[in-house]
Amino acid sequence: MHCYSRRVEFAETDAAGVVHFTKLLGYVEEAEHDWMRGLGVIRLGEGFGWPRVGVEVRYLAPARFEDLLVVELTNLERQTRGLSYQFVIRREETLICRGQLKIVRVRLEADGSFTPQELPEAIGAIFGPNPTR
Amino acid sequence: MHCYSRRVEFAETDAAGVVHFTKLLGYVEEAEHDWMRGLGVIRLGEGFGWPRVGVEVRYLAPARFEDLLVVELTNLERQTRGLSYQFVIRREETLICRGQLKIVRVRLEADGSFTPQELPEAIGAIFGPNPTR
Amino acid sequence: MHCYSRRVEFAETDAAGVVHFTKLLGYVEEAEHDWMRGLGVIRLGEGFGWPRVGVEVRYLAPARFEDLLVVELTNLERQTRGLSYQFVIRREETLICRGQLKIVRVRLEADGSFTPQELPEAIGAIFGPNPTR
Amino acid sequence: MHCYSRRVEFAETDAAGVVHFTKLLGYVEEAEHDWMRGLGVIRLGEGFGWPRVGVEVRYLAPARFEDLLVVELTNLERQTRGLSYQFVIRREETLICRGQLKIVRVRLEADGSFTPQELPEAIGAIFGPNPTR
Repeated sequence: MHCYSRRVEFAETDAAGVVHFTKLLGYVEEAEHDWMRGLGVIRLGEGFGWPRVGVEVRYLAPARFEDLLVVELTNLERQTRGLSYQFVIRREETLICRGQLKIVRVRLEADGSFTPQELPEAIGAIFGPNPTR
Repeated sequence: MHCYSRRVEFAETDAAGVVHFTKLLGYVEEAEHDWMRGLGVIRLGEGFGWPRVGVEVRYLAPARFEDLLVVELTNLERQTRGLSYQFVIRREETLICRGQLKIVRVRLEADGSFTPQELPEAIGAIFGPNPTR
Repeated sequence: MHCYSRRVEFAETDAAGVVHFTKLLGYVEEAEHDWMRGLGVIRLGEGFGWPRVGVEVRYLAPARFEDLLVVELTNLERQTRGLSYQFVIRREETLICRGQLKIVRVRLEADGSFTPQELPEAIGAIFGPNPTR
Repeated sequence: MHCYSRRVEFAETDAAGVVHFTKLLGYVEEAEHDWMRGLGVIRLGEGFGWPRVGVEVRYLAPARFEDLLVVELTNLERQTRGLSYQFVIRREETLICRGQLKIVRVRLEADGSFTPQELPEAIGAIFGPNPTR
């Protein structure tokens, strides 16, 4: 499990007085980058990216300006050329949302296209030898 | 079905050269508001909101700055105190993403809390008499 | 003068119930791109960008969700390797904000750096022969 | 002077590979809120807001994904019903941008309008007795 904490900033709220639903998904991405940073995985500097291929989320309670939220990433699993994981966002004991994401690793080509890549070693090593090969 | 078209603006792209995945969900929300606006349903002026309770999305191809996208909303269905619908976002024949959303209607209370509400008449009327009452 | 109209979308509002001040500057950038698009000036596809070097803005009245705003760009002037212009954003007769921007044209190098460039011909031609050469 | 540090998140970058210019202004607002939070000044919970009335900024160098930036607020001065201050954003010794802001304090009325207010005591006390009364 990886934990990441994040204060809700004013620009992330909307006119209903709560964090806009898309910004919560941005917090999950930040938590993922925070986890990768800890593993020494460079994301853009060397021409690689991690586009999302699937997102599922259930929104359970609103979060507001200045709330201190915790994003938890769990159940990280190796997928073909990518990863899946589950997440929850909490404010203390209150669940704000939970869901799951699938991401893939790609090389950013000079013409702007994406070429699927194997997982970087630092991440692949976490999951042990790939059972499918 | 409701169609809404939207050009990708520069501020919505990210350093991988594509629209950030969260912004595509914002386009779906815009399409939904565009549909509601056509029905004369006021969203905020009278103290009502439509928070999302569930989102599922599959990302299929990247979209880029200046792309002219079409968002299509289909399979609108009445849910308890809310609605569900499916969506696709296309650039001509290319599918950018597809998924589904569930939203509920709430009253925005003075203390900042949300109270679930019945659908407004203009929307409820589309689905015929509520079979559960 | 170039005019661009823009409806305020929900995701652009904040918890004070108005458009976030940074989003109004995004509308100005959109109006600028809309003007360039009309001149056939490609912005990113061929590796050029237009970073801002200076922004000044006075905020005069709030704008809200669903407001239909008009952005007007005026007083476009050639600068060394760039342009300056003034802008206002209005909702009918109400001035929302006004200000000025300076932008430069750069080539986006493979290593991520920016190299200053002359104005593209389609834009330079608007201002007549450059008096300084 | 108040200092606030902030890592650049991926969603804040644009397709030129740098932080979008509007997001840097958002970082300044975050630094301001961080300063107010330290003084115990509640911003929204009790129905007050701090809209911006003027912004000036010079952009000097690009900032990129994962950069660790420092926002410094200086020269805080009392204005009629508001404050002005200057800011710089740095990445170590590199100046990313600098500028100044004017903000006012308002009460958020039930009908959505803003009524100008005196500074809260915790902030007014910093500047000593108001010389104009």
